[in-house]
Amino acid sequence: MAEGLLLILSGPSGVGKGTVCRALLAQLPRLKLSVSVTTRRPRPGEEEGREYHFISPSRFQELIEAEAFLEWAMVHGQYYGTLKSKVRSALAGGFDLLLEIDVQGAAQVKRQWDDAVTIFMAPPSMEALKERIAGRGTESEAEIRRRLEVARREMAAYHAYDYLVINDRVETAAAAIAAIVTAEKCKVSRGACPNF
Amino acid sequence: MAEGLLLILSGPSGVGKGTVCRALLAQLPRLKLSVSVTTRRPRPGEEEGREYHFISPSRFQELIEAEAFLEWAMVHGQYYGTLKSKVRSALAGGFDLLLEIDVQGAAQVKRQWDDAVTIFMAPPSMEALKERIAGRGTESEAEIRRRLEVARREMAAYHAYDYLVINDRVETAAAAIAAIVTAEKCKVSRGACPNF
Repeated sequence: MAEGLLLILSGPSGVGKGTVCRALLAQLPRLKLSVSVTTRRPRPGEEEGREYHFISPSRFQELIEAEAFLEWAMVHGQYYGTLKSKVRSALAGGFDLLLEIDVQGAAQVKRQWDDAVTIFMAPPSMEALKERIAGRGTESEAEIRRRLEVARREMAAYHAYDYLVINDRVETAAAAIAAIVTAEKCKVSRGACPNF
Repeated sequence: MAEGLLLILSGPSGVGKGTVCRALLAQLPRLKLSVSVTTRRPRPGEEEGREYHFISPSRFQELIEAEAFLEWAMVHGQYYGTLKSKVRSALAGGFDLLLEIDVQGAAQVKRQWDDAVTIFMAPPSMEALKERIAGRGTESEAEIRRRLEVARREMAAYHAYDYLVINDRVETAAAAIAAIVTAEKCKVSRGACPNF
């Protein structure tokens, strides 16, 4: 059985990564979403091993020291990370694994796993991104401006990625990522070879 | 308008390149099949500019001297070649252009046009290839053996290609090539960028 692909998906908050991921997972039975490890407490409705693996800060620290993480970060005082062992077992099982992580996390992974396929998702325009952020209806005008400014800075990182996918429609963006998976598996440099 | 892709498709005789190309052309409205220039006479039913551009040997020689060919070869005493000008105008017009050429031709093109995407098509097995060649019913046992031997040698060249596509079913092979086209257009190294 051929080993699976490690896919990294990044993009500014509000670009629709979650929705496109769900569409992709429904389309590609061999694709799994990576489940991160975190020190934050489970929220109501969250299940161990589904949204996250929940562990203690001291255990997280041990795992950092044991170099068990492919990438990790601290966000709002809580640790989040991706375990190498989880990635290895998914890929060895022939599954493709999708990591939805930020630009810094993607760079950390790529340094250790240069076979990883990196995909940056961009909105069709900044106007469209603004509408999506504002459309949630939960944020003030100042907060929307702040988030757009962050998005603008994040967008500049697309240069470091292998592929750019524009999320104009969920179906088109999901189809583009599915095409990238198919194409990558046909790459001779990745070991594609005749069956004889 | 973004410039189109130059796609090169090679594979042993009998692998089904023609059938897959027709399926692809029907699927992808922006894809054109490159029409070669030749010195051989038109066969009944062939039309100038459709199967080939038919020219005289002296004109072909002039074009060789003017370095007008992306690749050319002599087969059974007749010249065949691909004009750079035809390739450039198709790509500049935003069309993707498919060249169905042999291993030597592909190497010639790749040297001059390193942006070209090279795809090697292989049969699912040598047994399947033998059945396809024999299935035409037009060749002797000795001729089938000879053609299989040639195919076996040609197969070794797949290493030099970017992608390998196995033609187990026409639809699957055509879908894989369509996916390669989609993925290549998303490559940041090829200039994919946000619209703003």
